[in-house]
Amino acid sequence: MAELVGNVLVGQSGGPTSVINASVAGIVSEALNHACIEEIYGGLDGVLGILQEDLIDLAAESQQQIRALKHTPGAALGTCRYKLKKQQDFERVLEVFKAHNIRYFFYIGGNDSQDTADKISKLAQQQGYELRVVGVPKTIDNDLAVTDHCPGYGSVIKYLTTTIRETACDNEAMGKGDLVSIIEAMGRSAGWIAAGAALAKRRDHPHDPPHIILLPEIPFAQEKVLEDVRRILKREKYCMIIVAEGLVDADGNYLAADSATDAFGHARLGGAGDALGEIIESNIPGVKVRVARPGTIQRAAAHCASKTDVDEAFLAGQAAVKAAVSGETDKMVTLIRGDGDHYTCETGLAPLSEIANGVKKLPREWINEDNISMNFQFLRYALPLIQGEVALPHDNGAPVYARLDKVRIDKVMPPYEI
Amino acid sequence: MAELVGNVLVGQSGGPTSVINASVAGIVSEALNHACIEEIYGGLDGVLGILQEDLIDLAAESQQQIRALKHTPGAALGTCRYKLKKQQDFERVLEVFKAHNIRYFFYIGGNDSQDTADKISKLAQQQGYELRVVGVPKTIDNDLAVTDHCPGYGSVIKYLTTTIRETACDNEAMGKGDLVSIIEAMGRSAGWIAAGAALAKRRDHPHDPPHIILLPEIPFAQEKVLEDVRRILKREKYCMIIVAEGLVDADGNYLAADSATDAFGHARLGGAGDALGEIIESNIPGVKVRVARPGTIQRAAAHCASKTDVDEAFLAGQAAVKAAVSGETDKMVTLIRGDGDHYTCETGLAPLSEIANGVKKLPREWINEDNISMNFQFLRYALPLIQGEVALPHDNGAPVYARLDKVRIDKVMPPYEI
Repeated sequence: MAELVGNVLVGQSGGPTSVINASVAGIVSEALNHACIEEIYGGLDGVLGILQEDLIDLAAESQQQIRALKHTPGAALGTCRYKLKKQQDFERVLEVFKAHNIRYFFYIGGNDSQDTADKISKLAQQQGYELRVVGVPKTIDNDLAVTDHCPGYGSVIKYLTTTIRETACDNEAMGKGDLVSIIEAMGRSAGWIAAGAALAKRRDHPHDPPHIILLPEIPFAQEKVLEDVRRILKREKYCMIIVAEGLVDADGNYLAADSATDAFGHARLGGAGDALGEIIESNIPGVKVRVARPGTIQRAAAHCASKTDVDEAFLAGQAAVKAAVSGETDKMVTLIRGDGDHYTCETGLAPLSEIANGVKKLPREWINEDNISMNFQFLRYALPLIQGEVALPHDNGAPVYARLDKVRIDKVMPPYEI
Repeated sequence: MAELVGNVLVGQSGGPTSVINASVAGIVSEALNHACIEEIYGGLDGVLGILQEDLIDLAAESQQQIRALKHTPGAALGTCRYKLKKQQDFERVLEVFKAHNIRYFFYIGGNDSQDTADKISKLAQQQGYELRVVGVPKTIDNDLAVTDHCPGYGSVIKYLTTTIRETACDNEAMGKGDLVSIIEAMGRSAGWIAAGAALAKRRDHPHDPPHIILLPEIPFAQEKVLEDVRRILKREKYCMIIVAEGLVDADGNYLAADSATDAFGHARLGGAGDALGEIIESNIPGVKVRVARPGTIQRAAAHCASKTDVDEAFLAGQAAVKAAVSGETDKMVTLIRGDGDHYTCETGLAPLSEIANGVKKLPREWINEDNISMNFQFLRYALPLIQGEVALPHDNGAPVYARLDKVRIDKVMPPYEI
């Protein structure tokens, strides 16, 4: 494979995670090792910034800031949920690439983002513009095909595990057999995150919370859940429920929108947790319900990130660069778990199209027959992903995160109407 | 003062905090230093356990567990919101004390708890039963009189500060001038906690979030706040609002209960954050609102505790024992801040009655004229309280907290009907 000389463009897409910036750090630090890479640009706000030629010079950032990216939540380049639709959009992207001699495009994101990367790559091939496109997986939802797991997932479930252990101490002190404590976890369509709550239970401590996990995969059966709550409150001081925000009833309707609208007739902002709390309060006399909805706090909780997750996100960024430099294109980096008893993880590659069109579901056989807890297969899968803590630098009692200088690259194209 | 030989009883009361157990650790470890103290008992679930003679042997716990209390959230002895009312209740408490030769009573709690301790102490004096009662301050609400600040407060505002810095990274990545990010802070009647959010702003960075802090002290003025949001969204990518759960309108009604009831006609569980979000969405077209309600997560977040706070909570426990042994009674330990530029803190004592009947308000002059931000006087007050981090022991990726054996003391009294 002939050496391809040119510039790198990195973009971030979709919802932020605690570790998406670690992948940027991996890409930048690896790119500096390769003479064929001349400039390292970042595209602001995902594809939006590329369309509008909003590019920054990542090589101009201090090493300190690039290193700090490894522990900085959010998405330092900015992100978007904009989806390229028109053919014109794709052509514009390629025009921008050509104008800035972008020969390596690394796109960090989920399903949709890998689909976008795939389409850009194919258009470049059609036009005979040599471009290497390698995606880097990112999503707290852990729903990408092929890869064993996704960077971002380990940290969100470590946050949840930590929070459950702590909330349990509080609930244990307050509950007198009458307390229902609900924590709403992210996860619209898949229960991977809520399932991760199972890690908070110590091995061989069946009374440990969470007592009930409600997954989007299992349609909400009101009477059965109420019965579970009553049974647990007879046995325990409190009943802790983790509910996925995307919990649906048997008809596939979100529990949230179903149960309440506000004074203006809007479906409520919040969600499944409050709706569930109301159902329990209305049906079980005398219980006190407490609902916590950490919302985006959970995907931003870098102070509680998994070191394994951070390291793998960084590794995935490095691997993307190595693969592209060695001639790979149209692929996404995957994480491959070793076969041994001791957890190991290395990177692989899978075609972007396979990622774009697939989705990894939480295996039904990892959910216990009671429908409210996870079995040993899930725990074996998830436990290695939350190992290790990250020590954050603090200044005056608060964590300090990277802030990029964002030195702009001169625009050379006419403006583009989005 | 003649040496008083007898047993110690420790109780915890009211809502848990990240550091209330550190005070227990301080009491137990100090009590072991004094020969006049024979047994060290814990009363379970605050006064409820005392009334019912549910006592445990704290000296029988392993040193490991007592040490682990220093970083364990919740209230390891259990707590309650039960208020002694009937004269009979107080007399029962004293009967239990006499039956177990309790001569030292340490009650860790807020306003109401110190009032209870005061009444118990006075009844003992009336009856000529020699008892030394010393309270230990505890409340995330920071509203106790006399003491400079309360153990528990520093940790909750450190959690809030950390969470704001992290959520800011997420919001900065997602916002395009259209994002309103609301975090609901605890604090029913005082804005101390919400005010603490101001610490997340870096010095000399006026654009840092939080952009708006809504305190219970300032009646909610809808048009003014909407104007603030519009102004900030013109300038920033997002507008972050910290709202105290106890926000009230000009008539003193909670914002929460006012704005929405559910399908059953109940006032909503949640609160000010959702209500505010709905007001903003209804009045500012095109904005996206995200509401996080960490709820009890914030007061249990020991993984994010302030080392200063933990150390002071421990110190307050030790000081209570030292004071009682030296003959003090009917007092609460206070924290006294040194006069110098460099923060120092030592303990003092104040009469329980003074604590019971007082309340410390957030000074109006610490709130800026814009009504939505805190001034330099507040920052000078609060910043020292969040200094230092606590390294928690982890097992398999999750923090490990103390679990007491709770060896029961034999009951010698007839049962008591609550």
